[in-house]
Amino acid sequence: MEEEMNPAEQHSATTVNLSRPVRCIVKLGGAAITCKNEFEKINEESLQTVSLQLRQAMTGGGSSRKFLGMDWSKRPGIFEAPCVGDDTGDQLDLDSGSFGHFQASKSGVHKGGLNQPFVKAGFVATRISVTSLNHEIVRALAREGIPTIGMSPFSCGWSTCKRNIAFADVSMVAKAIGSGFVPVLHGDAVLDNSQDCTILSGDVITRHLAAELKPEFVVFLVSTVHPEISVREDGSWSVVKPALQDMNKQGCSVSPKLHVHILILENKNLIRILSSTVEITIAAHDTTGGMVTKISEAAMIAKLGIDVYIVKFRPLILKRWTEQAATDHSLRALSGNLKVDMPEDWLGTVVRFVR
Amino acid sequence: MEEEMNPAEQHSATTVNLSRPVRCIVKLGGAAITCKNEFEKINEESLQTVSLQLRQAMTGGGSSRKFLGMDWSKRPGIFEAPCVGDDTGDQLDLDSGSFGHFQASKSGVHKGGLNQPFVKAGFVATRISVTSLNHEIVRALAREGIPTIGMSPFSCGWSTCKRNIAFADVSMVAKAIGSGFVPVLHGDAVLDNSQDCTILSGDVITRHLAAELKPEFVVFLVSTVHPEISVREDGSWSVVKPALQDMNKQGCSVSPKLHVHILILENKNLIRILSSTVEITIAAHDTTGGMVTKISEAAMIAKLGIDVYIVKFRPLILKRWTEQAATDHSLRALSGNLKVDMPEDWLGTVVRFVR
Repeated sequence: MEEEMNPAEQHSATTVNLSRPVRCIVKLGGAAITCKNEFEKINEESLQTVSLQLRQAMTGGGSSRKFLGMDWSKRPGIFEAPCVGDDTGDQLDLDSGSFGHFQASKSGVHKGGLNQPFVKAGFVATRISVTSLNHEIVRALAREGIPTIGMSPFSCGWSTCKRNIAFADVSMVAKAIGSGFVPVLHGDAVLDNSQDCTILSGDVITRHLAAELKPEFVVFLVSTVHPEISVREDGSWSVVKPALQDMNKQGCSVSPKLHVHILILENKNLIRILSSTVEITIAAHDTTGGMVTKISEAAMIAKLGIDVYIVKFRPLILKRWTEQAATDHSLRALSGNLKVDMPEDWLGTVVRFVR
Repeated sequence: MEEEMNPAEQHSATTVNLSRPVRCIVKLGGAAITCKNEFEKINEESLQTVSLQLRQAMTGGGSSRKFLGMDWSKRPGIFEAPCVGDDTGDQLDLDSGSFGHFQASKSGVHKGGLNQPFVKAGFVATRISVTSLNHEIVRALAREGIPTIGMSPFSCGWSTCKRNIAFADVSMVAKAIGSGFVPVLHGDAVLDNSQDCTILSGDVITRHLAAELKPEFVVFLVSTVHPEISVREDGSWSVVKPALQDMNKQGCSVSPKLHVHILILENKNLIRILSSTVEITIAAHDTTGGMVTKISEAAMIAKLGIDVYIVKFRPLILKRWTEQAATDHSLRALSGNLKVDMPEDWLGTVVRFVR
């Protein structure tokens, strides 16, 4: 796991030339748009809902507003009335959910060794799987009139060294934004200078993009509820609710009392404490590493002065009133209103750096 | 149409660092692998055959040889025995056939004007369509154990100025080859410095890649038969067979007498004459511009000292003995044996530069 930006990143962060500011980077959690427990299955309903929400957030308008669909592929319902909302240069970054994980873990792509035929095959297979999902997301958003451009980190020439980002030029991403497009990236298999190849996760990509593009805020749309975290005066912190043993028993059940959780990062040291502590205390119930990486990367982003909102998009367990509530809360996060007005009843986690 | 490399290309052509030589660049004609007259329909049989042939050409072996399939997506027959042939750093470049043309021509993406909502939508729609085909080709080749990597010119940061290539860094393509992969590119919608956007055709990409990567030879797999071209002493040339008016009547019927056609380019002037003459005389029966561009680009490649073999892959009209023959002849071209041994009975067009 990366805890610090390496010098290459710190250098390049100062050189990106943006023709217009980026409002938001959205990380679509794989589990929120795919059926996590089914092999390569997209949750079409979730994908459609998130596409609709993103359009609403971008246009600041209602769902009934006319727009120009942009997926002119062999599907019903192409060519809607030409009416386009404004484009805000929003930036999407994706992880893969039930796509890519099997291929990557089966072949051990993250551990390198391209000279082994099985790793090489796994590298190819992983890229096929994650680009397949990315393609479907690009299409779903285009159908909502969002001018999406699929971009693979591998094709963009991004590479790592000892599994940390070594070269990740975002100039083409910036150019696409400058031309009014919404780039859609994804976690990818990439070349690594020290071990031939590895996996570059969507969370790490999100943090890198945030460092380079300096958006107003970052939203992580996730499927599992986050714990309430208490930060103490001395900078240490702990999970208050639900207790870890309870989470293990009940999965990730949500408590009606669980409202706004603001994780205030007060200084650089706190981030270090946070990262190492999270690894020890939360990893137990989070075998995919999702929670650990997410909080660590969110903390790194917050350290740059960029608010991070982690919000449930689609509750997997509770299906009643909370579903509507979660949808509403994610839309509020995407709309960017939380930065100026954080209502008491907003359900989600804010990671914010207070100097 | 481009007739000369611009200074940017000439410069970058000298700076590519290849860790191993490239044997061959293959241009899969869209019409050879898609159903040209049906909207976004892949010819699965052709795609499977061409994938098999490419594997045979790369391994130099028979079709029964065991290999490690690399498309581990939701399909039957994944995970074959781990046995991989050698990888020769072959390079593929694609055009789109029935993919992308509709979206591009409908919206006029090639003429620029991204500030118009309909052009912008067409840009997005074109990219969705061509990347969709590219993805399927990557998968088909991966199923044959070819370690393919899909790479979009747009994502690679390629751009044009006045519709000519302005910036097209192939270093990432070269790196992928150096790591033992077979990059698969495609004709793409790209950003243009002078008119916002345009279409970069597969033929132009092929020529650019040839100039940069300097392969031993280039193969164009096409679906329509090429005319017999006679080159005269003074460098002028004409189409001997079939006569142009007959081609208009009969489509592109093949004559049994049509064997090897070697177009010898003797000097720089000839190429200029060739380009301008072709535009006038052949364009009549070739509304897609395919023939004009192909011969012009092939001539540009030949000028670099690289043999170009244009060969029918799948006859669309004649379905009897010629089909098997064409398949056999395309395999011979892909295998690279034509460079040293050009048999009398080989059916196709060679474009070769004789100083």
